[in-house]
Amino acid sequence: MNKLKIINDPVYGFINIPYEILFDIIQHPHFQRLRRIKQLGLTNYVYPGASHTRFDHVLGATHLMNVAIKELRLKNADISDEEHKAALIAILMHDLGHGPFSHTLEHSFVKNISHEEISLAFMKKFNEEMNGELDLGIKIFTDNYPKKFLHSLVSSQLDTDRLDYLRRDSFYTGVTEGNIGSERILKMLRVVNDEIAVEEKGIYSIEKFLGARRIMYWQVYLHKTVVAAEQMLLKTIERARKQSKENGVYATASLSYFFDNNIFSSEIFHSKKLLPSPLDAFAKLDDTDIIVSLKEWSNSEDYVLAELSKRLINRNLFKLEIQNKPYEEAYIHELRKKVSKYFKISEEDSKYFVFSESIKNKAYSTHNLYRINILLKSGKLADIAEASDISNIATLSETVEKYFLCYPKECM
Amino acid sequence: MNKLKIINDPVYGFINIPYEILFDIIQHPHFQRLRRIKQLGLTNYVYPGASHTRFDHVLGATHLMNVAIKELRLKNADISDEEHKAALIAILMHDLGHGPFSHTLEHSFVKNISHEEISLAFMKKFNEEMNGELDLGIKIFTDNYPKKFLHSLVSSQLDTDRLDYLRRDSFYTGVTEGNIGSERILKMLRVVNDEIAVEEKGIYSIEKFLGARRIMYWQVYLHKTVVAAEQMLLKTIERARKQSKENGVYATASLSYFFDNNIFSSEIFHSKKLLPSPLDAFAKLDDTDIIVSLKEWSNSEDYVLAELSKRLINRNLFKLEIQNKPYEEAYIHELRKKVSKYFKISEEDSKYFVFSESIKNKAYSTHNLYRINILLKSGKLADIAEASDISNIATLSETVEKYFLCYPKECM
Amino acid sequence: MNKLKIINDPVYGFINIPYEILFDIIQHPHFQRLRRIKQLGLTNYVYPGASHTRFDHVLGATHLMNVAIKELRLKNADISDEEHKAALIAILMHDLGHGPFSHTLEHSFVKNISHEEISLAFMKKFNEEMNGELDLGIKIFTDNYPKKFLHSLVSSQLDTDRLDYLRRDSFYTGVTEGNIGSERILKMLRVVNDEIAVEEKGIYSIEKFLGARRIMYWQVYLHKTVVAAEQMLLKTIERARKQSKENGVYATASLSYFFDNNIFSSEIFHSKKLLPSPLDAFAKLDDTDIIVSLKEWSNSEDYVLAELSKRLINRNLFKLEIQNKPYEEAYIHELRKKVSKYFKISEEDSKYFVFSESIKNKAYSTHNLYRINILLKSGKLADIAEASDISNIATLSETVEKYFLCYPKECM
Amino acid sequence: MNKLKIINDPVYGFINIPYEILFDIIQHPHFQRLRRIKQLGLTNYVYPGASHTRFDHVLGATHLMNVAIKELRLKNADISDEEHKAALIAILMHDLGHGPFSHTLEHSFVKNISHEEISLAFMKKFNEEMNGELDLGIKIFTDNYPKKFLHSLVSSQLDTDRLDYLRRDSFYTGVTEGNIGSERILKMLRVVNDEIAVEEKGIYSIEKFLGARRIMYWQVYLHKTVVAAEQMLLKTIERARKQSKENGVYATASLSYFFDNNIFSSEIFHSKKLLPSPLDAFAKLDDTDIIVSLKEWSNSEDYVLAELSKRLINRNLFKLEIQNKPYEEAYIHELRKKVSKYFKISEEDSKYFVFSESIKNKAYSTHNLYRINILLKSGKLADIAEASDISNIATLSETVEKYFLCYPKECM
Repeated sequence: MNKLKIINDPVYGFINIPYEILFDIIQHPHFQRLRRIKQLGLTNYVYPGASHTRFDHVLGATHLMNVAIKELRLKNADISDEEHKAALIAILMHDLGHGPFSHTLEHSFVKNISHEEISLAFMKKFNEEMNGELDLGIKIFTDNYPKKFLHSLVSSQLDTDRLDYLRRDSFYTGVTEGNIGSERILKMLRVVNDEIAVEEKGIYSIEKFLGARRIMYWQVYLHKTVVAAEQMLLKTIERARKQSKENGVYATASLSYFFDNNIFSSEIFHSKKLLPSPLDAFAKLDDTDIIVSLKEWSNSEDYVLAELSKRLINRNLFKLEIQNKPYEEAYIHELRKKVSKYFKISEEDSKYFVFSESIKNKAYSTHNLYRINILLKSGKLADIAEASDISNIATLSETVEKYFLCYPKECM
Repeated sequence: MNKLKIINDPVYGFINIPYEILFDIIQHPHFQRLRRIKQLGLTNYVYPGASHTRFDHVLGATHLMNVAIKELRLKNADISDEEHKAALIAILMHDLGHGPFSHTLEHSFVKNISHEEISLAFMKKFNEEMNGELDLGIKIFTDNYPKKFLHSLVSSQLDTDRLDYLRRDSFYTGVTEGNIGSERILKMLRVVNDEIAVEEKGIYSIEKFLGARRIMYWQVYLHKTVVAAEQMLLKTIERARKQSKENGVYATASLSYFFDNNIFSSEIFHSKKLLPSPLDAFAKLDDTDIIVSLKEWSNSEDYVLAELSKRLINRNLFKLEIQNKPYEEAYIHELRKKVSKYFKISEEDSKYFVFSESIKNKAYSTHNLYRINILLKSGKLADIAEASDISNIATLSETVEKYFLCYPKECM
Repeated sequence: MNKLKIINDPVYGFINIPYEILFDIIQHPHFQRLRRIKQLGLTNYVYPGASHTRFDHVLGATHLMNVAIKELRLKNADISDEEHKAALIAILMHDLGHGPFSHTLEHSFVKNISHEEISLAFMKKFNEEMNGELDLGIKIFTDNYPKKFLHSLVSSQLDTDRLDYLRRDSFYTGVTEGNIGSERILKMLRVVNDEIAVEEKGIYSIEKFLGARRIMYWQVYLHKTVVAAEQMLLKTIERARKQSKENGVYATASLSYFFDNNIFSSEIFHSKKLLPSPLDAFAKLDDTDIIVSLKEWSNSEDYVLAELSKRLINRNLFKLEIQNKPYEEAYIHELRKKVSKYFKISEEDSKYFVFSESIKNKAYSTHNLYRINILLKSGKLADIAEASDISNIATLSETVEKYFLCYPKECM
Repeated sequence: MNKLKIINDPVYGFINIPYEILFDIIQHPHFQRLRRIKQLGLTNYVYPGASHTRFDHVLGATHLMNVAIKELRLKNADISDEEHKAALIAILMHDLGHGPFSHTLEHSFVKNISHEEISLAFMKKFNEEMNGELDLGIKIFTDNYPKKFLHSLVSSQLDTDRLDYLRRDSFYTGVTEGNIGSERILKMLRVVNDEIAVEEKGIYSIEKFLGARRIMYWQVYLHKTVVAAEQMLLKTIERARKQSKENGVYATASLSYFFDNNIFSSEIFHSKKLLPSPLDAFAKLDDTDIIVSLKEWSNSEDYVLAELSKRLINRNLFKLEIQNKPYEEAYIHELRKKVSKYFKISEEDSKYFVFSESIKNKAYSTHNLYRINILLKSGKLADIAEASDISNIATLSETVEKYFLCYPKECM
């Protein structure tokens, strides 16, 4: 019985792990894999400090869940020990389904299946190994448990997931404008009519939280150079897969499975025919498979693959422009021609070097099933967008859509 | 000219890069490699937040050098712009010679040659590519420049290297007891008779710095679980190399070079016969080569290699005991017998599972060429160990030696 | 020559005082008086940590001015040493004209004359004593210097005054939502066409700054309990002055001058007839005069004065209600009747116990002479309200007006 | 029922006040008085930020007691709700007996009676008013309760008093070297055999705590300029008292009581003959009485009193020298002669301007009843001085004694 009980986290200090089953989950090889998946993919190309992992994030979110439930109990919310444990399990495992480079490659190896669906598949697998001990946690995760507020602590617009990742990403990137007082917000929560609500005095903290979220989007998650690196990575994997089909390509053992098999639907993902199963193969895959492959591909005979890989490894990134309306097809076409000429590649191949898409962000959704409730002093609940004395929040709930164009700057 | 000028660092905030040549160095692929080498190897197995890299550290140390020189100039130290730039170059490149997992594997792939020697080799290579622009930086790095104090800012008992790594490692591990006010200390430096000295009022800051250093040693660098993981990694590489010679073994392209060639002396390292040269091969190697190989070796037919690799990847570590005197040979032998029986391996092979060595630490050396000087109010210089009003420092300068014994706990 | 050169500030760390004349100003008894005037008056009745003084604030603002000018010079702004020194003088002295309890009693002892006007009177007095050395500082303070941007660093919507007080008040109150990265913002300033501008990448920092400002208004400066205490203090001084005229009342020597003389216009304030002059008398007055008097008044034979004073000293405050429209006269009248009956005082006197007024706040003014400029990447300047990609700022520039009603809760 | 429940503290964030009686105590006028007594007297003359009060400190210490007891209960210490409440009461009231300028004037107005004895007198008075509800708290405070460990949390070498004041004084002075992780240390406490013990892994935290304590002594509490100001204040009060007896002197109402009556023994302090009682008179006295009196005394006809007061108010302090052995009587005598001549005062009076005494500090006492226990992994308890692997602590337990000499520097 040499189990760790307290973890030292740079963000919150000591984190207590209050139930033994949580250790068993953490020590599972499939869970340890999260240590090898960076939380923010290639963001460290802009913010070097951002090398934290999914492992760190889920522990942090679990800590916040623990704090939240303790606070709610102090305020007489009816939460049993079993529910406490289950909510911790649900948040601890909510990101197990992430693959290499998290969101960036979410649809590269496995398609038409979300990371939440894969997380659920892992939870079910663990549940079998652990004799049904995760039943309640799975119900909460999938929102099939009567006390709906427990699910909303796992997934909503004010869940412990966001409260951790905004705080943590701000901490590691050094973008202090995005810093939020996560534990502070949790001290203002209440359960009212089976919903999570924020006490009225917490209204400014929520406003700051939503503002910080918007800031983190534009300064970090959608930072031009970050998006450029991520898009290049997407194109590189796309190219490698193409090469793999046509001419064969180097890949680590874990990676080649996903080049050899098209795991492009839920059916295939869950089918028992393949051996190893897609889930087991997925459990072997992490960031290092991609990096080692990129290093190898740098010497590929396929010029496009080699060039993309070399640039990625050496951080010699494409330029990325952003504007509020779509880029003209003619302009993109012209650029591709230039690139085709400059790099001596076909126009078809130039699409790997010149491409355009849109990115969106909305800081707050008033239509969301789990909107943010304010518990007014009158005892009534109101949506934050209504309760706030000025219309800031309304503004935050407008979707902002932008368009980018990515290309190698030396051809201009 | 799209060069980065300011870097956002979670430890110090904005870091300015004041000379263009520093960017050129940073953007060099050999330098970018440092992004893929963790500063603290496997320490994140105990302190999950500690996933920062050598890249982060050298930028931080460069920032501190910049702050130090600015402060010294304010106090009328004679430092030209060329010397300023050269000192920044020296500290920026001082860790280029680190390989995968930094200190842990420092003598696994390349033997009898220190990481400083490799750093110097890289500096010379860069210097050729950059037409001699690094000449002065190299002189300072190798302590061949008349103004000795510049070298002591790069390497001494109070250099910008230590001032960064203690602060940074404390930040990322969350071991706040090791936190030091690095920039604060720099504000108390002076140049006196070509030596760096600390103003008398800074004596408590230095005492805290030395105390923090000792704390970091015992709580982090020599933490039992960290040492266990590192020792297991050493044994695993040793085994893989043995297998490689005898039966062949999987290795990434970058890694196999070092299994195929015995780079065991300075002569071989610098010889021009091998192609690619050991330096160029070393420049391809990083943490990911080791991790991917470990994942692969988990399925090795060699039981010892597979078991060690599996345990490392899944963080199922050996137990490590520590005591103040060497472990008895008889006791170690007995343990190896048990292990041999339990795992059904030869007694020879059991040496990979049961082993003992010593670890040492001394927080301050009074014999060091670059001891820490205090500038007394009387205008005289004194060694910190004499200037401190109580004998704390004297105590810190005693060497502490301990012995560990490492073995799989299930066989007990 | 035992002059202090570095001050240890809990907010910024070490503060350098770069010119000798700044020490001379700081050591002047009129300046030392600021040590006895709390920055936030009675706010410590809600946020106990908020006991910092005007002295702390002006040193902090001076530090930020120093940082700002250093940064602007790095970016080639044309600022001479004389201008540097003068700008530091201007900000160092900008709050000398504050009296006891800062803003709360700004119009109680001296009427129809702003604290800025008194600051200027002090600056002129110091200037005489210092042989005209403050000439340039006074020009900058009064906006009579051609380089307008220097004045705007002293007083504008993004001046070093605000950048310090928001940061400092947030630090001491513990209202972390109001925390802003003051030094970070300063690193993004530029001088463009004699105006201060913020580089485009700083747009989110400015948004956060304005948001933090609004939060500090509603959570701290206009906090219900703070306003209640301040209003009670105003009423108490008003009553004491009335008593002083009618029946005589205790007052410390410094205070009685302002009860005996009606310093109710600029003319009287600056007239040479009174001895000591109003300025010299004002220079003797600080928070302690009020507190000692309140303690004494607690035993006054005048019931109204005694009750108000006792409640203030013992933090037994009136209740304060807030709403978005004015309170009905009839309702106020009714309350006064109740109070009159409950406390057995005349209806006229009940006005000291029941009163209503309005409070306003606007986070950003687009009409301000010194609006906040953003330096777009195109090289053009734009008002932050136009440059921000969503209309947040526009919202912040709406004035929010609220009404309060204050009364002793026991009579309800 | 408009009672405050959560207090925002800049050091710890939100502080919960878990029992209603704690509010009743806090709202008592005798307790509110602590808002007007600075924690560190005149220390803000060196560290301007240090304007925090006894009120802040006792709330902080109460918070730490609350955290400590929660943690101990989690580890199965047997502590009832009544004991929890009583321990909070004991720490909340432990400093009620402090008078103006805390320790500096502890023996100026009331002699031969410690502040702890006065605290106890207040506790008994409150207990009467509160119908015996403080009985248990008083037992713990006076160490008359069987569970001794509760008293040691109130008063020992690792009590919540020290854990708060070191942390808080470090925070407000900006002397970050003195910063300790108070809440972190509390997480490592255990109750073993009715004693408080620190888990072995906490040994470095304790070492850092003792080191930080020593640093705070020499950098803050015994800082030369702080000691000079404090000694001058002592001399000023001594002189005013002398003048009061001989010629009469200004004093605020609260202060004059202590000039008119010699409260120089426990008997007199507790006697019922005086009206008001010494305790009630003491309850009216705070920092502001001293400051207003100093301002008045600046105009005294007694030159010595006027000069001392003026210098104190305007921060024109005497010089203070420190050495390791006593100053020679002859030297002191010579200085007094010079001063006597320079200021044209009698040699007798020059003793108010030139004086010498000793100051001592010991960071850790091995003889203390409540030494710091370490709970070894073996299950045994050991004194920290024995448990620490190197002899640092032994060093810290040596008493350091120094001698100062104070005089006006202009006469030299």
